Amino acid sequence: MWLLHQFPLCAFSRKVRLLLAEKGVDYELIREHPWERRDEFVDLNPAGQTPVLIESDRGITLIDSDAICEYFEETVERSPMIAGTPVARAEIRRLVAWFDQQFHGEVVAPLMRERMLKRLVHRTSPDTGALRDAMRTANAMIDYLDYLLDHRKWLAGATMSLADLTAAAHISVADYLGGVDWRSHEGTRAWYAGLKSRPGFRPLLAERMGVIAPPAHYDKLDF
Amino acid sequence: MWLLHQFPLCAFSRKVRLLLAEKGVDYELIREHPWERRDEFVDLNPAGQTPVLIESDRGITLIDSDAICEYFEETVERSPMIAGTPVARAEIRRLVAWFDQQFHGEVVAPLMRERMLKRLVHRTSPDTGALRDAMRTANAMIDYLDYLLDHRKWLAGATMSLADLTAAAHISVADYLGGVDWRSHEGTRAWYAGLKSRPGFRPLLAERMGVIAPPAHYDKLDF
Repeated sequence: MWLLHQFPLCAFSRKVRLLLAEKGVDYELIREHPWERRDEFVDLNPAGQTPVLIESDRGITLIDSDAICEYFEETVERSPMIAGTPVARAEIRRLVAWFDQQFHGEVVAPLMRERMLKRLVHRTSPDTGALRDAMRTANAMIDYLDYLLDHRKWLAGATMSLADLTAAAHISVADYLGGVDWRSHEGTRAWYAGLKSRPGFRPLLAERMGVIAPPAHYDKLDF
Repeated sequence: MWLLHQFPLCAFSRKVRLLLAEKGVDYELIREHPWERRDEFVDLNPAGQTPVLIESDRGITLIDSDAICEYFEETVERSPMIAGTPVARAEIRRLVAWFDQQFHGEVVAPLMRERMLKRLVHRTSPDTGALRDAMRTANAMIDYLDYLLDHRKWLAGATMSLADLTAAAHISVADYLGGVDWRSHEGTRAWYAGLKSRPGFRPLLAERMGVIAPPAHYDKLDF
């Protein structure tokens, strides 16, 4: 059995969980708070970050969401998520990188710092300017998704791919933290509603991060 | 002919160039300074970042260093750089991600901000505390490379891989900006000397970024 070290608001762990669900791979969860820098966890992953996925019977340790997703894409045929020609695969990976780097760096990370870490760890108030900037950036990036979805059925083309799972993972964490204003994003909203209704997404939407409550619309399929 | 949009101190472009050299793929360079946010470039890549690699005859645009490297790994058989079993490939990608995210985020990005952008763009003085932090982190991360190279011939195992090219790309930019203290890193130094002597590395070491001069040892094979 695979064991996934993660915490509920880790967007990279959500990306891995959505992929594992599509591929039909079972796993169990282990809660890990990377900001506590637990010695045993840093020994496991010198980068000190979730997700880490372990199969101890076979002695396999997989670290980093991209490395994990590529591993299951290579080893599990069901539901290919990086499919098509090399150019199509490059387009999927471009969008994955865009979400993992820019959407995470400029939207999810500041929201987590201001609305989660400052409350759970530092016991200080959020910086409203930083929150405003993160929400403005979220809005601009979702405008670009609206544009893509005007031209394509799924983000990277005609079929669902790792780009959709990655984008939905990051957007779901931003949405939990109140960072997404869904007005005027009809295209992306319809796409996200479709993803939310997938069986692999529902357990994620049911989880809560301690005292931090999501907005009322967060886990609703009709929002 | 492939056209690569890049600038000399872009570590992600260096990573792509080292891979293209190993694979024997020819390309021409186009200088792009992403911080200027040129309209035509942002139209090309909404993320506004180098590298972008274009083959206009075939209408191919590749964006993001990982997407580009995976594309050539899939399309050019020569010199496999993400080779081996799925577990071995996951180890290569773990180290690539570690350098692209942590070494870049905590070492290369602050060095570029303090020693390049502040001089070229903002005309302000570097923050010596930020420089000290970046150099301390570089030292700790290179300690980990020393440890890996005590146990392995190359960073991810018995053969050279994209992990080595990625690490060398980021380290070379940090070294250009005076961020690497080579004392007490014999293992990594020997490994890096081997990479520096590869034909694909030499043109990179000969390039200069405007008025910013590297330290005297930077382009020497014996340093």
